[in-house]
Amino acid sequence: MASAPPRGRTSSYAASGVDLPKRAVALGELLRTAKYAAPPSHGRLVPAPGHYAGLLRIGRETVALTTDTVGTKVLLAERLGRWEEVGEDMVAINVNDLAAVGARPAGIVDTVLCATPDPDVFRALGRGLGRGLRAARCSLLGGETAIVGDIVRGIDLGATAMGFFPGRREPVLGARIRPGDRILGIPSTGLHANGFTLVRRLLEENAIDPTRARPGGRNPIGTELLRPTRTYSAMADAVADRPEVHGLAHISGGGVRNLTRLHRHVRFDLDDWPSPPSLFGWLKALGGISDREMFETFNMGIGFVVVVASSGIAPIRRRLARAGAADSRLIGRVEPGRGVEVPGFGLRYSGYA
Amino acid sequence: MASAPPRGRTSSYAASGVDLPKRAVALGELLRTAKYAAPPSHGRLVPAPGHYAGLLRIGRETVALTTDTVGTKVLLAERLGRWEEVGEDMVAINVNDLAAVGARPAGIVDTVLCATPDPDVFRALGRGLGRGLRAARCSLLGGETAIVGDIVRGIDLGATAMGFFPGRREPVLGARIRPGDRILGIPSTGLHANGFTLVRRLLEENAIDPTRARPGGRNPIGTELLRPTRTYSAMADAVADRPEVHGLAHISGGGVRNLTRLHRHVRFDLDDWPSPPSLFGWLKALGGISDREMFETFNMGIGFVVVVASSGIAPIRRRLARAGAADSRLIGRVEPGRGVEVPGFGLRYSGYA
Repeated sequence: MASAPPRGRTSSYAASGVDLPKRAVALGELLRTAKYAAPPSHGRLVPAPGHYAGLLRIGRETVALTTDTVGTKVLLAERLGRWEEVGEDMVAINVNDLAAVGARPAGIVDTVLCATPDPDVFRALGRGLGRGLRAARCSLLGGETAIVGDIVRGIDLGATAMGFFPGRREPVLGARIRPGDRILGIPSTGLHANGFTLVRRLLEENAIDPTRARPGGRNPIGTELLRPTRTYSAMADAVADRPEVHGLAHISGGGVRNLTRLHRHVRFDLDDWPSPPSLFGWLKALGGISDREMFETFNMGIGFVVVVASSGIAPIRRRLARAGAADSRLIGRVEPGRGVEVPGFGLRYSGYA
Repeated sequence: MASAPPRGRTSSYAASGVDLPKRAVALGELLRTAKYAAPPSHGRLVPAPGHYAGLLRIGRETVALTTDTVGTKVLLAERLGRWEEVGEDMVAINVNDLAAVGARPAGIVDTVLCATPDPDVFRALGRGLGRGLRAARCSLLGGETAIVGDIVRGIDLGATAMGFFPGRREPVLGARIRPGDRILGIPSTGLHANGFTLVRRLLEENAIDPTRARPGGRNPIGTELLRPTRTYSAMADAVADRPEVHGLAHISGGGVRNLTRLHRHVRFDLDDWPSPPSLFGWLKALGGISDREMFETFNMGIGFVVVVASSGIAPIRRRLARAGAADSRLIGRVEPGRGVEVPGFGLRYSGYA
């Protein structure tokens, strides 16, 4: 039986008036009517309901597949004429979802929808794509460039990433998470590619010029906002084989609520959440946005999470450091209960969607 | 070294004034700047330059990945309020590309970009998706539904399909094709999902009402045009293990020129091309379109091709018939030379793009 396939979610929906319940209803209809259970000769589904990637056993390997688009961050890229960052995002947002099930990235295909193929734009996108591929050690296997000016304004960027589980690695889906586990966070590099419908509204309503720096900021606001998504592939790959690693999460659309995708019957108590970078505070002040909305729309400074047995913290942090995350830190612990709490901000979320 | 990744092409570009050379330049820039060779620990590329799918050896399996969008056929679907057909297309256009390398479909992820998620539309899309999945025996592994009204008008539909090579099957890439081989064609079910930018222009310029039948047509024109893409997965799967099968081709965007993707140093002589269904003749007459443009924009009645050693025709046709293609027929032969010829229409193409 097919489990409900995971689907990328964009937190900015909630924040920008997009009708989330209506979307859930529509998507439910699609999944219900599309339901089909393929015979095992065409691969065996590995159940991972609500998770970051779909898993399939084919022959002697388990393969992970996930797809996501950069979303409305491209509209800011277009406004600023900067395309490298979103090119890198196309890879990063997808391989980070692979990382969250413990899969090593192998291949990616990209989709560029545009009205007019501008060689300068494509060159910059390619440079960004190349950076993303190098960061993830992933091959570009193909893609689709569609000139569909009757469908898209400007450009839309998406990709699908395929990963696998080397050696005897099992998918890391969170089932081993238990009260007493500790929660490590790895910092983000800014907004990544989530919340941009809200960000764009804030810029517009406040007549912000993104080519200028904000108070306290060193670079132009646009540069800060477009900073590419950090790639967590190498870090996840370095720890996914370790039995003391019980869960992995990509803090993307939906913010910290993503943690509930790993295990529904524990409470993720984020009692040591680091002070969010000032960019988040600036956005919060700009829109008078509540902490609740901030934490379910943006990553708030932490882009990837590793849930570890309490006895294994030090060696896992060393492995993460060798793989590029010397900046991992303890941000909380797993407790009995349900949902996610960020006590420093007085927040409690019961679930994901 | 990474070979140039294959990319879906939409024949309607040429026919509707989309700037194809500019697109090729832009895409070339993207591929050049994105170039990166991943280490073998992240999978080994199987060279298949210009082919229908990217191939990667991961662990003990070879996996195929391909991505394509339904393109502007969705605009006709929208106009007619019919979504099942394009839902089925999302699967079919991608698994047919897998079929063209001899891969068995395993998993698919879909991407729906829309301005507003309408439950009725999503329900119909899901029914179509389900039909496509059943026809291909393929699992839906996940997807992305993005509400991006600032980027798309209406809706865009795409998907990525992953396939594999069961048992000891090798990818069928055309290298064994040689003069003397015979060419089998399997009929299409109409336009499939190619050429719709041109079709829409013809309907508009001639003020055609797609809810009425054309002269000689039984069903409304819109129904004829939207007919879903035939799924060739089972047929290809039934013959891809046979050593007498030398090549497989999906006649999609680019029409018969697709055959040159299989082998550059032979001539595909389509000297027994069947009379195209009357829908194609009607479109040709409507726009005063040359046979040359028709054959490089539409499938002209044949949607999939199997190149077979001359000694193996009868058993391969029997296998195809058991897999759902009792209607396969000989349409030509392989000769020394280059390119594709359709002598009955006085046509000769030297290459693909």
